[in-house]
Formats: sequence, structure tokens, C-alpha cells
Amino acid sequence: MEARSSFPVTSRTEVHRRPARASYDRAVAYSIFDEALVAHVAFSQDGQPFVLPTMFARLDDRLVLHAASKSRFATHLGSGASVCVSVTLLDGLVLARSAMHHSANYRSAVAFGSTVELTADADKLVALARLVDHVLPGRSLACRPPNALELKATRVFVLPLEEVSVKRRLGGPLDDAEDLALPYWAGIVPLAVRAGVPVPDPAQAPSVEEPSGLRAYERRTVNDPANGSAAVAREVQP
Amino acid sequence: MEARSSFPVTSRTEVHRRPARASYDRAVAYSIFDEALVAHVAFSQDGQPFVLPTMFARLDDRLVLHAASKSRFATHLGSGASVCVSVTLLDGLVLARSAMHHSANYRSAVAFGSTVELTADADKLVALARLVDHVLPGRSLACRPPNALELKATRVFVLPLEEVSVKRRLGGPLDDAEDLALPYWAGIVPLAVRAGVPVPDPAQAPSVEEPSGLRAYERRTVNDPANGSAAVAREVQP
Repeated sequence: MEARSSFPVTSRTEVHRRPARASYDRAVAYSIFDEALVAHVAFSQDGQPFVLPTMFARLDDRLVLHAASKSRFATHLGSGASVCVSVTLLDGLVLARSAMHHSANYRSAVAFGSTVELTADADKLVALARLVDHVLPGRSLACRPPNALELKATRVFVLPLEEVSVKRRLGGPLDDAEDLALPYWAGIVPLAVRAGVPVPDPAQAPSVEEPSGLRAYERRTVNDPANGSAAVAREVQP
Repeated sequence: MEARSSFPVTSRTEVHRRPARASYDRAVAYSIFDEALVAHVAFSQDGQPFVLPTMFARLDDRLVLHAASKSRFATHLGSGASVCVSVTLLDGLVLARSAMHHSANYRSAVAFGSTVELTADADKLVALARLVDHVLPGRSLACRPPNALELKATRVFVLPLEEVSVKRRLGGPLDDAEDLALPYWAGIVPLAVRAGVPVPDPAQAPSVEEPSGLRAYERRTVNDPANGSAAVAREVQP
């Protein structure tokens, strides 16, 4: 069954503050998941909130998470308890004429649900390959795949993407009309994650070739309609 | 009273997985807080975990958070309930010869505690100035300060930095000895947040000067001893 193109709005995902910045569009959320490298996963133990940064990937309509089998994180994910996953891309700083209108341009997706463990080795291998390919497309075919021991030492979970919302800001500062003539510079400083020159492992034979395209590594999803941080459009003040 | 130079290890902050990567050093944690632009704040409501990305700053031995007075986030922070704040810097991708040794170089700080609201206008103004100066040093003196209406519409909270731990990874891939001769490239792709060319607000008079140094904007804390992501040192396999 094909997933619906919009997520339903629930009490957990409804954006109350600045609803004009919200989206429940599946394609917009997926573009954020696919660009980001890190997710922050929150869970609650005896009422105590915890949040952990982790690598992740999207596999069709699910997020893939993994953890060392003996870790507390794996134990929690394996319990089927509720998690909240936040994925945030920072696109720019917004400098305004007034302190309180300073802001940031960002794209942020949040997903709620309970993780499901993948226990069959074949399923685990697909999900783990996706984690590697999320970082560098095709990489899972250019390295040694997990062996039986490694598979046993790693638990793999998926979070079905059923309850998701996006919030984003783009465009320039939204100063009050009476502040527009103040003599303070206002505008955007675009920000992006950039890759430096790859550093080979010194233990490596000189004959091993660097993956093609590694020097042009970037995360930017070119076709994402939300990528407008560098353009100063005047958003309507909510 | 001066804060202790190391944080006590508690049941909430003790790092169990790969303890060699943990630090409870106050200076290391502060260098992470000072470099990062976004924090992920987790809280729990009726056992349901939530996590929100937000701008933040460090003010001496406290983290500053703020929220619109009418928001659910402000209501939660104002309740004095427990929060968990995660601040993560991604320094590089680690490509290994084997899929399971792929990793990331990062510096991550997590703080636990309960927020305290600042209610006196003088205190709020200091904390809000710090939020702006965290993004761009000196900026709070180069913009219109908050007025009475704005102060009323914003609640300001501080989280005392008393229960904090750091986890970080640096260095190259840690492949198994028997994999070292495999013909797959291994090494690091350094990553960093980079600023683009500032985009002035088109509503701005041409006579308004761009802040000096804005074109060289960067977050990198030069003196941070943890900044070694570009150097491939062979960490001892835990």
C-alpha cells in the first residue's frame, strides 16, 4: 500500500506556534531526513527524558536506527516504548534590526512513534546497508558487509513514519515597520555543512583509490523546494 | 563560588558505551556549548517524550533558553520539570573498510536538570543579550534592545550546568586487523558548518554597513583541544 502524501495532524504533531511555518507533507519531511546526517532521539524512562544524537537513515517509509546489543539505548528501543525523533538542518542566521527578531532559517522534522525491531538477518542487512548508503550513496557495495558476529552485536530498529511534522523558516528578517530605518545591518548569513579534503588512513596501500566524487561531497538536496535560505523573501508576519 | 572544573558522574550522565570517549571536564563541555548554534531540548509529558531544536547560549555556568510566553514549551520549562539538553557538533565522516566500522567524528554534550525562570527584567535583558551575542559576538550592542512589550511576550529560563557529560570521537577508522588489506578506501571526510556570503535585507538603506568580520563568520573554537577531526590518529580499539 502506498503511503499517503500528507501526514495526519495529531495532538503530538500539531504545530501551534507560527502554524504558517508548519508542513505535514511527506515529500518535504523526507527531503529533510535524506539530507541530515544526525537525528536526536528522545525517550522517557520513569518520567526522566533522555535525548541521544545518532546516525540514522530513511528506508522507504521508515527511519532506521541501530544500537549495540548491550546498550541501554537498544534496551529502550526494544521495549517498544514511545520515541520522538528530531532532525534539524540549519540553513542560516537571520540578523534583524531588533534583538528579538534575530532568528535562524532552518528545516526541522519530528517523528513520533514506537520502534519495531528487525530480527531476521536479511532485513538487518538491508537496513544496515541503508545506514551506510545514507552517508555515501553506493558505499555499502564498496566495503565489507557485516558478518555474523557483527550482526549479533547490533540491534536494528525501524520507526514507521506515520506521525510526522515539519517546521521551517526561510527568508529575511521580519523587523517591525518602525524599526526599518534603524542604522543596524539586517540580513541573512547562509550556513551549510561543507566537506573538507578527504584524509586517507595512513595504514592504507597507496594503490587504493579514493571513491569518485568524495571531494565534491555535499548533503544539499538540490530539488528541495524549501531550499530558499539565501534568497531574502519577505515572509508575511504571522 | 567558582564552579568545579569537573562534573560529578551521576546515573544520568555516566557513559557506559565506550567510556574512553567520555569526558566530564567543564572546559570541554563549555567549548561545545559555545561553538554550537542549536540545542535539542527533551522533556516528558505524561510519559510521552518530546524533543525540540532551539537556539541557546551559555551564560557563565548556565544555559539560556527562551520561549514565547504562550507556548507549550514555555509552560513546560516553567513547570520546573526535568529536561535533557543535547548539543552535538559533527566533525567528520569516518569511512572504514567494513560497513560496521563506519562512524562519525563528533563532539556531543548533554546536560540534565530543571530550568529556573528569570523574571526580573534586568536579568532577562542580560540573558537575551547573551543569546544574540552567542550567534554573533557584540551584536547585542548593534541592534535595538528588547522593549517592554517584547520582554513580556518572552519567557527566559536558565539551566544550571551541574550534571553534564561529553562524548566525542576523533581520529580515523578502526577496522579489524584482518580487514586492513581490503581494497576499500578508508579515511575521514572532515565536515564543518560554513557561512556563505551575507545577503542584506533589500529594504535596507545602502548606507548601512555590514558588520565587520561577517564574511569570515565561523563557529570553530580554535583552542578547543578536541578539534582533531582532520588528523588521522589511531585511537586504541576499546
